[in-house]
Amino acid sequence: MKPRLSTDEYAAGIASGDRVILAKAISLAESTLPEDQQQAGELISKLGPAKNTIRIGITGVPGVGKSTFIEAFGKHVTSLNKRLAVLTIDPSSQLTKGSILGDKTRMDELSKNPLAFIRPTASGNTLGGTAGRTREAILLCEAAGYEIILVETVGVGQSETQVKNLVDFFLLLMLAGAGDELQGIKKGIMEMADAILITKADGDNVRRAKEAQADYQHALNLLTETDSGWKPKVLTCSALSYMGIKEVWQTILSFQEHMISKGYYQAQRNTQTVKAFHEAFDYLLRNELAKYPELRVKAETLEAQVANQKVQAHQAAGELMELYREVLRQS
Amino acid sequence: MKPRLSTDEYAAGIASGDRVILAKAISLAESTLPEDQQQAGELISKLGPAKNTIRIGITGVPGVGKSTFIEAFGKHVTSLNKRLAVLTIDPSSQLTKGSILGDKTRMDELSKNPLAFIRPTASGNTLGGTAGRTREAILLCEAAGYEIILVETVGVGQSETQVKNLVDFFLLLMLAGAGDELQGIKKGIMEMADAILITKADGDNVRRAKEAQADYQHALNLLTETDSGWKPKVLTCSALSYMGIKEVWQTILSFQEHMISKGYYQAQRNTQTVKAFHEAFDYLLRNELAKYPELRVKAETLEAQVANQKVQAHQAAGELMELYREVLRQS
Repeated sequence: MKPRLSTDEYAAGIASGDRVILAKAISLAESTLPEDQQQAGELISKLGPAKNTIRIGITGVPGVGKSTFIEAFGKHVTSLNKRLAVLTIDPSSQLTKGSILGDKTRMDELSKNPLAFIRPTASGNTLGGTAGRTREAILLCEAAGYEIILVETVGVGQSETQVKNLVDFFLLLMLAGAGDELQGIKKGIMEMADAILITKADGDNVRRAKEAQADYQHALNLLTETDSGWKPKVLTCSALSYMGIKEVWQTILSFQEHMISKGYYQAQRNTQTVKAFHEAFDYLLRNELAKYPELRVKAETLEAQVANQKVQAHQAAGELMELYREVLRQS
Repeated sequence: MKPRLSTDEYAAGIASGDRVILAKAISLAESTLPEDQQQAGELISKLGPAKNTIRIGITGVPGVGKSTFIEAFGKHVTSLNKRLAVLTIDPSSQLTKGSILGDKTRMDELSKNPLAFIRPTASGNTLGGTAGRTREAILLCEAAGYEIILVETVGVGQSETQVKNLVDFFLLLMLAGAGDELQGIKKGIMEMADAILITKADGDNVRRAKEAQADYQHALNLLTETDSGWKPKVLTCSALSYMGIKEVWQTILSFQEHMISKGYYQAQRNTQTVKAFHEAFDYLLRNELAKYPELRVKAETLEAQVANQKVQAHQAAGELMELYREVLRQS
């Protein structure tokens, strides 16, 4: 039986920068046991919000060079004496425990850097789960003194939307020379980006990367507009020759400055948190359907009837609501 | 006291193409009275789905020339002996009844055309409401023999998303010569478009319209990808000189053909309907919060605590769910 740390012990360990205790606290937050979730919640409330951190979401299709970029980026920011935490989300993989080693191998140098902390996020229990757990992992890392939080996702559509709601700045990595092809990037991902970074801009690729940069910058200027007034940037880099890495960091800093000056930095975080609350509540409400077989069966029957236009959507919703109340009342 | 038509009387009137009865049936569907909604639902189920119709969503900022385009487009398709219904959604206006006359004045010729039916949709009771009512209005018009349904919205962000889920084809109208400016079109609208139509391409404007066409076509090719494989088109038109109108209709026909051949035409409609059911149910679930003051107060308190990081999102959701069950049990 593993000894259970008290909330105070966790808090003290995290505040003192103890990486083992930080890792344990993240595991606590990822646990599905109600008592663990309860304690993780209390711990985070106790630790309170950290100041002046920046949360960066990174996405891109496999092969675009995410790990190599993160290595180079990590080297740069730690050379400025910043502390960096890297959280990886891979909703397609159930082998989370195995991939801890995988990640450390992927980011070999960074994993040995005392200013860096690398950690994959458990993604086993998906729906509403992943994002919630990652949110708490971010808060724990911030409380442990990490000022830059990278949340890395693989490009599979669903996860980007969740990550977008967790971070301040969303960076999309793309390959040069792809012309009109979209490299498997889904509709809607590109316009979530605060910056697009064209990777592997080295050797023969430099010219193509510059052309793609101009192309995408023009397209973004045409097609996207943000409430905050931030104009998404297109950058190029070569992690190999270490070019353009500094510029990414400078862009992130000027983004943060822009957001703070316009009053959007904290406002966006608050909106995200309240949204996370609403989503978690919606998830619980919906979860009842799965919990009670009669509700699940009714919902499926109605779906089929609605699709065949036998019943109208709002009537079906009303019927299901009736049964829902009935079931909850009796439970 | 107005005499109430029976469901059979409604059905017979609609099947025979009686415009007065069609208009009454739409009013029935728009009514907030439960018995009216019930009857409207039964009526639509009784009428059953119509075949081979095309539902077209049209949006664009005020001044882009929506009414003028709809006039010209309506003239073209009715000249091909097609029957056209135009439904207008204006969520910003509470003066729905007043705007019926407004719409008829706006589309002077079309409103006198026996093959056309023009009708604004009530938008009074918003949330989850507008789209649901419009969906039923569409089905009623289709049952009455209208093969082309235009759903027009004003460009204000929220409504486009709702309309997108009601139609097969989404058309965005834009002005030429706006360069890098976005004409107030929000992020996300442009990539919902199956086609962009650059209006007022006449006189001195032709060259600028052609340039904008090439520009936007390139940007769309770069930034958007659809599941169905349809490549969004950029077209130009002049409703004044009646140029490019025919091409819009041809584009819509080739879109429909594409969707049918790829198996997406009916599949998309089914997905939309099931989604409408889920949204209506979510709306009812959430509506409970507003119904019980103690739940509303609790939700607001928790929101504030979550935003201040006093309570974690998933814990707040759990607390609210507890109270919700409690309230339902006692109700």
